[in-house]
Amino acid sequence: MEKLKLLSLYTGFRKDLTFIEKELEKTVDSSSPVIRQASLLLLRAGGKRIRPIFVILSSQFGQYSKENVAKVAVSLELIHMASLVHDDVIDNSDVRRGFETVKARWNNRIAMYTGDYIFSRALVSIGEIEMSAVHQLLAETMLEICKGEIIQIEFQQKIDQTFRDYLRRIKRKTALLLSSSCELGALVSNASPDVVRKLKRFGYFAGMAFQIVDDILDITSTDEKLGKPAGSDLLNGHLTLPTLYIKDEPEFQPYLVRSFYGTLTDVERGEMLTYIRQSGAIERAQRVSDQYLEKAIAEVEMLPDCEAKKSLLQIAEFLGQRKF
Amino acid sequence: MEKLKLLSLYTGFRKDLTFIEKELEKTVDSSSPVIRQASLLLLRAGGKRIRPIFVILSSQFGQYSKENVAKVAVSLELIHMASLVHDDVIDNSDVRRGFETVKARWNNRIAMYTGDYIFSRALVSIGEIEMSAVHQLLAETMLEICKGEIIQIEFQQKIDQTFRDYLRRIKRKTALLLSSSCELGALVSNASPDVVRKLKRFGYFAGMAFQIVDDILDITSTDEKLGKPAGSDLLNGHLTLPTLYIKDEPEFQPYLVRSFYGTLTDVERGEMLTYIRQSGAIERAQRVSDQYLEKAIAEVEMLPDCEAKKSLLQIAEFLGQRKF
Repeated sequence: MEKLKLLSLYTGFRKDLTFIEKELEKTVDSSSPVIRQASLLLLRAGGKRIRPIFVILSSQFGQYSKENVAKVAVSLELIHMASLVHDDVIDNSDVRRGFETVKARWNNRIAMYTGDYIFSRALVSIGEIEMSAVHQLLAETMLEICKGEIIQIEFQQKIDQTFRDYLRRIKRKTALLLSSSCELGALVSNASPDVVRKLKRFGYFAGMAFQIVDDILDITSTDEKLGKPAGSDLLNGHLTLPTLYIKDEPEFQPYLVRSFYGTLTDVERGEMLTYIRQSGAIERAQRVSDQYLEKAIAEVEMLPDCEAKKSLLQIAEFLGQRKF
Repeated sequence: MEKLKLLSLYTGFRKDLTFIEKELEKTVDSSSPVIRQASLLLLRAGGKRIRPIFVILSSQFGQYSKENVAKVAVSLELIHMASLVHDDVIDNSDVRRGFETVKARWNNRIAMYTGDYIFSRALVSIGEIEMSAVHQLLAETMLEICKGEIIQIEFQQKIDQTFRDYLRRIKRKTALLLSSSCELGALVSNASPDVVRKLKRFGYFAGMAFQIVDDILDITSTDEKLGKPAGSDLLNGHLTLPTLYIKDEPEFQPYLVRSFYGTLTDVERGEMLTYIRQSGAIERAQRVSDQYLEKAIAEVEMLPDCEAKKSLLQIAEFLGQRKF
């Protein structure tokens, strides 16, 4: 139902999206059976294709070039996919979006190199664009994402951390790539510097809202809808916004410690999720997400009126309130 | 002794190399203690810095720009380092060049992301060069290297393989990056297309010779000089040129199978190494390396006379006959 709603938001640029989907399939094709199968597994597991969508929509504010836009969109989605493969190794995840992960079907080593391979494919795709600023921006973005991944490990199983630590982490984990998706879409279409800046900021704020909602859903949704156990973040040793609010409450601490040390039973997991849901922490986290969303919307509202502007607003609204 | 000999070959351009060494240290500096320590561990473990040397020497055949050359050299050495960190995960290596590996000091996860981080640093470094051809070439090179890494896993513990399989593997593992080092050094100095092509071919042939010698040394050298157990390639399930020659000999097969299955005792490892050394396979492999070396030299000899030409010839000769 929710997925259908998202798809309906994409109607206006379904053709661009289909083109990009085909390019993605072509791009990961390889003579090595392992690479081909692993990449296709990842592609088919789908996802919301938010990065390509942001690239397409942002490109409408300049001189739109289908080829350039497709190269950037494909590249960004591939970087996102590559980072997921590596994340599944870190989080020891066997299932993502209901599909077996690469590390589960094969092993950590294959997952590592499949990630590297897809990463390189992304560079080849964007390499065809003859704009230095594009390569520099992408390189800087990837660097920050990698730093974020290592910092995430440093903070794993760590109870003593602040909101600032959390915000910095989700910035690198999600907001930066969405921000760069908007910026790059606008850049390759030669949009004006002011428009580029506004879209970049929009992507950043929308990304922060998006990740907070993601972290909320990990607690409020069901195993079935998530395609992985609810509460996975805690089981993997990651404190997120809702749990940061209550981490020092004496009733919650035993659950937290047992989650981090892998000794939580399934019954306790249920009790823990109920506790968090009733603590008020979800609502507080949602309010922070809403604030980011408002900031995102404010940026877009300053842009010239057009179909893409409407779509950006609708999608942002949807991302901040989605149920999956 | 041998190391001193190599250093003496570098005398003519020690200043460039010192500059690049400092840039490398600056580049991997990071506010995250894990990243900083891991990167410095890798940098200090040293290595022969062949990629930077090839970049510097190749750049002498055009209009030399210290900054551009340093950016390319730093970038290529970082890519090489990143691939070593990931390789140590694949090969489960605890020691490299006598130093603890990142995966041993920390773990596979930290090693994976340190590799990603260094990889991204490489892109930022080369991203400052405003030449599209440079980015495209680098992206294509990395893609092939990643493919090679996955193919290497597919061929692990596989006895049924051909010389062609081996040559294709070392091309991706070593020759391509050396070839691209020469090509990029020449490209960023605006050398003529003909010179670029010759240097590219030189790097490729020298790289093939270099890797074959590396694979020979894994059998003929000592644990101490290698900084890891002699015969590691076989213990890790990799057939190399010398062992391809004798893989079907009935006296050798039991050693081979036990190496691949991890049941070889240390005494048997000694017997196996003696067997290979006395089989004539080393000499046959050395001849193949020599042939590649001759091809490499033939390319350079067609280049205009200069100091860099002499150095390239000396280094190539050295790499094909080195004892470490």
